[in-house]
Amino acid sequence: MPFDCPGTRTLSASGSRGRAAAAGLCGRGGWPVERQARAEILTVGTELLLGQTIDTNSAYIGEQLAAAGIEVHWKSAVGDHEGHIREALRAALARSEIVITTGGLGPTEDDLTCLAVAAELGRPLILDKTVLESIRHRFTDRAIVMSRNNERQAMIPEGATVLPNRNGTAPGFAIRLRDGRIVAAVPGVPSEMRLMLNEQVIPRLRESFGVTSTIRSHILKACGIAESTLDETISDLIRLSRNPTIGVMAYPDEIHIRLTVKSESEAEGDRLLDELETAIRARLGDYLFGRDEERLEEVVGRLLLETRATVAVAESCTGGLVCHRLTNLPGSSAYFIRGDVVYANEAKERLLDVPHKLIAEHGAVSRPVALAMAIGMRQTAGTDLALGITGIAGPGGGSATKPVGLTYIALASEGGVICREHRFLADRDTNKLLASQSALDILRRHLLSSRHA
Amino acid sequence: MPFDCPGTRTLSASGSRGRAAAAGLCGRGGWPVERQARAEILTVGTELLLGQTIDTNSAYIGEQLAAAGIEVHWKSAVGDHEGHIREALRAALARSEIVITTGGLGPTEDDLTCLAVAAELGRPLILDKTVLESIRHRFTDRAIVMSRNNERQAMIPEGATVLPNRNGTAPGFAIRLRDGRIVAAVPGVPSEMRLMLNEQVIPRLRESFGVTSTIRSHILKACGIAESTLDETISDLIRLSRNPTIGVMAYPDEIHIRLTVKSESEAEGDRLLDELETAIRARLGDYLFGRDEERLEEVVGRLLLETRATVAVAESCTGGLVCHRLTNLPGSSAYFIRGDVVYANEAKERLLDVPHKLIAEHGAVSRPVALAMAIGMRQTAGTDLALGITGIAGPGGGSATKPVGLTYIALASEGGVICREHRFLADRDTNKLLASQSALDILRRHLLSSRHA
Repeated sequence: MPFDCPGTRTLSASGSRGRAAAAGLCGRGGWPVERQARAEILTVGTELLLGQTIDTNSAYIGEQLAAAGIEVHWKSAVGDHEGHIREALRAALARSEIVITTGGLGPTEDDLTCLAVAAELGRPLILDKTVLESIRHRFTDRAIVMSRNNERQAMIPEGATVLPNRNGTAPGFAIRLRDGRIVAAVPGVPSEMRLMLNEQVIPRLRESFGVTSTIRSHILKACGIAESTLDETISDLIRLSRNPTIGVMAYPDEIHIRLTVKSESEAEGDRLLDELETAIRARLGDYLFGRDEERLEEVVGRLLLETRATVAVAESCTGGLVCHRLTNLPGSSAYFIRGDVVYANEAKERLLDVPHKLIAEHGAVSRPVALAMAIGMRQTAGTDLALGITGIAGPGGGSATKPVGLTYIALASEGGVICREHRFLADRDTNKLLASQSALDILRRHLLSSRHA
Repeated sequence: MPFDCPGTRTLSASGSRGRAAAAGLCGRGGWPVERQARAEILTVGTELLLGQTIDTNSAYIGEQLAAAGIEVHWKSAVGDHEGHIREALRAALARSEIVITTGGLGPTEDDLTCLAVAAELGRPLILDKTVLESIRHRFTDRAIVMSRNNERQAMIPEGATVLPNRNGTAPGFAIRLRDGRIVAAVPGVPSEMRLMLNEQVIPRLRESFGVTSTIRSHILKACGIAESTLDETISDLIRLSRNPTIGVMAYPDEIHIRLTVKSESEAEGDRLLDELETAIRARLGDYLFGRDEERLEEVVGRLLLETRATVAVAESCTGGLVCHRLTNLPGSSAYFIRGDVVYANEAKERLLDVPHKLIAEHGAVSRPVALAMAIGMRQTAGTDLALGITGIAGPGGGSATKPVGLTYIALASEGGVICREHRFLADRDTNKLLASQSALDILRRHLLSSRHA
């Protein structure tokens, strides 16, 4: 279903536009296969220029187009100003085969994209009755009176294919010029834009330009390893891999390894990705905890469900963050039994039976106290596993022997209790995050080994 | 300290550039006061086009320039491609008096901004010995051998003012053309870009273009009130206010009211902002909880410190999030004593003395249980205040009479115990957030009234 070509159907206000688009009257005939398809994104909205809104739309569009085998080589952003929109569109069409505009399709006087595109391409705006009806329905369904402004949204440039909006009133549209260049206009509201882009724009662009290759990528996520160590471990793979390519991105708490492959078929792409992933896994082993969107707490939650283990958490410096992350998952009540945020020493003693003498002798931030917290929590909560976390999140509270960032994380299980010492070097928020990550990771590694056992 | 004019000093490799810039040899003489100063941002980096990185830099630059009275009216982004950078710069200079490029100043072969700007403006690259020395020092200090690539960063277009980089090796530069237009190149690393922009670029742009007016804005933050109700309450102020203007932005958990004023002096701006803020406060009262960057947990923490009150938290559906937010603040151990995340009923009974009968009769998610959790927690923790939170975060666990999102939040104090019922309508993550926000807000309102008492 490529976009309409002008001249293939009657231009009228009879609503035929919608039907014509649905019938897909335009064939691909005559176009060479896989024509050059350089794309350009034009974002419209004064709020973007003033920095009141961060433009996430163009990044999303760029990513989706790249994955669909279409390269974005230019982005522009202008304000709600007809002259600027026209000027930017003109420049874009001089450079690129595909121009995607986002924003400026709403019902207010400030929304000028449709007007500007129509004017620049020399096409009058025509009332589309099908669109008008669908906008009316949305209002009738909600028992709201439609304003005159919303009627503006049914005015579509002559010869354009209407792109229905399932999530809002503003329809998008696409125009195919005689020489094959395509201008597509999608809304600026992210949820509306995304659906329209993926369901309607990209499939038609691929068909119109005969694009058959796809670009797929996977992210492998690692934690508990320094970026430089990880780099060294797979440096030859990074250097030698051409397809898929490997990109490494480091975050405070984890490292993402992105594998990107270009292939003619999904199966071929998957095969190449699997091969490389296997090679990387052989090097990094359990440092890799998940893939793509998967968060560490999800992996831990899944392992807890698989092994039917229950867990309780006694946390001091992380202040509830470990509990919060473990309970972000639907169904976490199946394994998460109890958490205590024990800031005061007295609470550590009373709730977790940490001996007063232990705290007096070693200090609240010490290996013996972390161990006692984990053991005490496991006993009192009656769970299979229990974490005990104590540390100095900062910025205050540090000393020469116990600096800010010093953190002990203990895990008690049927088999005994282990404890790891960390020295985090960041600010309070990040130290909390890093400690929570290490706590979830110690849990993950224990569950992995108990599953293998 | 406006940027250097070409011709005012010797162009050589002798390091005079740095001294000339420091001495500020260029006066403003001859320029009309407050010349038109339209600015344009050119972002360089292929990763931005592929959507691998979201461009936050251009939003920041736009915001800072707007606040400094300089309007950004166009943004472009191109990849690491000399031809495209040149083409974009040419188009920008045809439209705008100021062009700020960001990105592409690093030491690698992919970093082409300096090269492209020099070529487009017809200025040879010259080795700046002062820059070279400062880069050498950075490496010597860290006992690392400097690579040849880093020397590339000391090659600066002829006649440019060097903008030293306090946070990294890549210096920026600025070139003032004969007709007064200015091209400034700053790095793409946000921390380096921000410092250079605010300390070096903006003051010089204001001086060069005779900009004296400033734009200031404040954000007032509200919670516990629907957006439509807030809109109605201040609709006449929104409609009638021209300077300052009022903008309303709704988030799931709070509403931000942005007041923006343009004035010739900071004092005048502050006076106008204060006047409007007073009018808004008279309407919205305690619905307003904070200003600008202030988070609700910060306000609550400050009130707890002021009133010397201590707090403990018993939370179920929020899963640790309330404790996490309260402990995000440095020094929170002064008022935060203990938190229990009590998912299992048995934990509610044993830790908080919630009667078994109460749970059996009313269910764990009920007003009586929330009240009992708060009272039990206050007694066992020995704090001035205690929160009890129970609800259904979803997506599972709901029923016809107790739907997902139903949440009870109780606060126990010396004066007794209160409880509010909420019905949140979002997904699990947002329901947790909304419940934590309401819990912190009930605490804030109690502390406000006890402070006034």
